[in-house]
Amino acid sequence: MSAIDDLIVELAKLPGIGRKTATRLTYFLLKQPNENADRLARAVKAVAEQIQPCAVCGNLTETSPCAICDDPRRDSSIVCVVEEASDIGAIERTAEYDGLYHVLGGHLSPLDGIGPEELGIESLRKRLGNGSDIREVILATNPSMEGEVTATYVRHMLDKMNVRVTRIALGLPVGGDLEYADGVTIAQAIVARREMPN
Amino acid sequence: MSAIDDLIVELAKLPGIGRKTATRLTYFLLKQPNENADRLARAVKAVAEQIQPCAVCGNLTETSPCAICDDPRRDSSIVCVVEEASDIGAIERTAEYDGLYHVLGGHLSPLDGIGPEELGIESLRKRLGNGSDIREVILATNPSMEGEVTATYVRHMLDKMNVRVTRIALGLPVGGDLEYADGVTIAQAIVARREMPN
Repeated sequence: MSAIDDLIVELAKLPGIGRKTATRLTYFLLKQPNENADRLARAVKAVAEQIQPCAVCGNLTETSPCAICDDPRRDSSIVCVVEEASDIGAIERTAEYDGLYHVLGGHLSPLDGIGPEELGIESLRKRLGNGSDIREVILATNPSMEGEVTATYVRHMLDKMNVRVTRIALGLPVGGDLEYADGVTIAQAIVARREMPN
Repeated sequence: MSAIDDLIVELAKLPGIGRKTATRLTYFLLKQPNENADRLARAVKAVAEQIQPCAVCGNLTETSPCAICDDPRRDSSIVCVVEEASDIGAIERTAEYDGLYHVLGGHLSPLDGIGPEELGIESLRKRLGNGSDIREVILATNPSMEGEVTATYVRHMLDKMNVRVTRIALGLPVGGDLEYADGVTIAQAIVARREMPN
C-alpha cells in the first residue's frame, strides 16, 4: 500500500470523514509545501504524547494539575461538572465562569456498559470530602436524555454532602451537544442555573 | 498555545474543515489509544516525504517513473490527459482503461495566473515527439468550463502531431469534478469518447 493510500485509510478513520473527504485532504496536503504536512504530523504526535488528564479535575492538559486547577484567581468554592474535557473549552470561551471543573468522562449509558464506576463520580465525592472549600456544584452535563439522567444520578450521590447543587439552565437546545452550542446560549444557561431539588 | 490548540489550528487549515470540526477531530484523537494518533502522524509525514511527481507523467508516486509508466502490460500507445494526479485514481478504479497518463497539474485560469506554461503541456508535446509510439491522446480534463477550455487549448497544441486526439465523453455531470464522479459514469465516459475536431 502506498503512502497515499495509507494516509487516506488513516484519515478515513476519523469521525465524519469518509473515503472521498480523506482522498481530498490527502491530495490537498500533497499540493502544499512539505513543512505544512510536517507541522500537522508533529501536532498530531504532540497531542498524543503530551496531553494527559489532570489528576484533580480530569481536564486534558500538558501539566497536572491543569492550568485551571492551578490558577489562584479561579473561585475554588464552585465546581462545574461536565461530561467531556472538550466541554471545558466551550464554557471557558464564554468568559462567564471563573470556578473550577470536574470531568465525568461521559454519561451513564447502561447499554454501552457505562455505569457510575466508569465515570468520575467517586473522584468528585472525594473532592467534596473533609476540608473541601467547595460550596456549589454546577451540573453541566449535556441537555440530552443521557445527560439529564447522569445529572440526576450525580445529584443523588451528593445528597448527604453539605454543598449546593445546581443544574445548568435549559436554554441549550434539548437533544443537542454542549460542545457545539454557541457561546451566548451557554453563557445564558450558566447565568440562569437553578437549584436542583433532591 | 497548548498541543490541543495547536492541532486544532493545523487541522482547521485543511479544506472543508472549520474550527468546530477540527476541535471534534482533536478530542476524538485524544480519546483513542496513542498508537492511532502516531499512525496518523506517521502517515501524514510519509506522504509529504515519500511522494513526488513521476518524471514521465506527473502522477504522484513513491517511485519515478511511477508504477503505471513502468508497467509493461499497460498500453503505451495511448495517453490519458488529466488535470490532477488525484484524477488518475478515479479512472484506475473503473478498471476500464489500461493506457498511460499525463497530468497537467490544473486547468487554464488566466485570472489565477495559470497559463499554458504553468501546465504540463510542453512535457506532453515532448512525450509525443520523435520515436514516440503514442497513437492516441484522450483529453480527460474536468467537464467544467475551465476543463473544456483547457482541452480545446491542448487539442490545438497537438494539431500538427500525428496522433488521434479524443475528448472524454460528456456524461459526467457538467460543472462537476472528475475526482468525485462515480465509477460507472467515468467508465461510460471513457467508452463513449469521441474524435475531437480541430
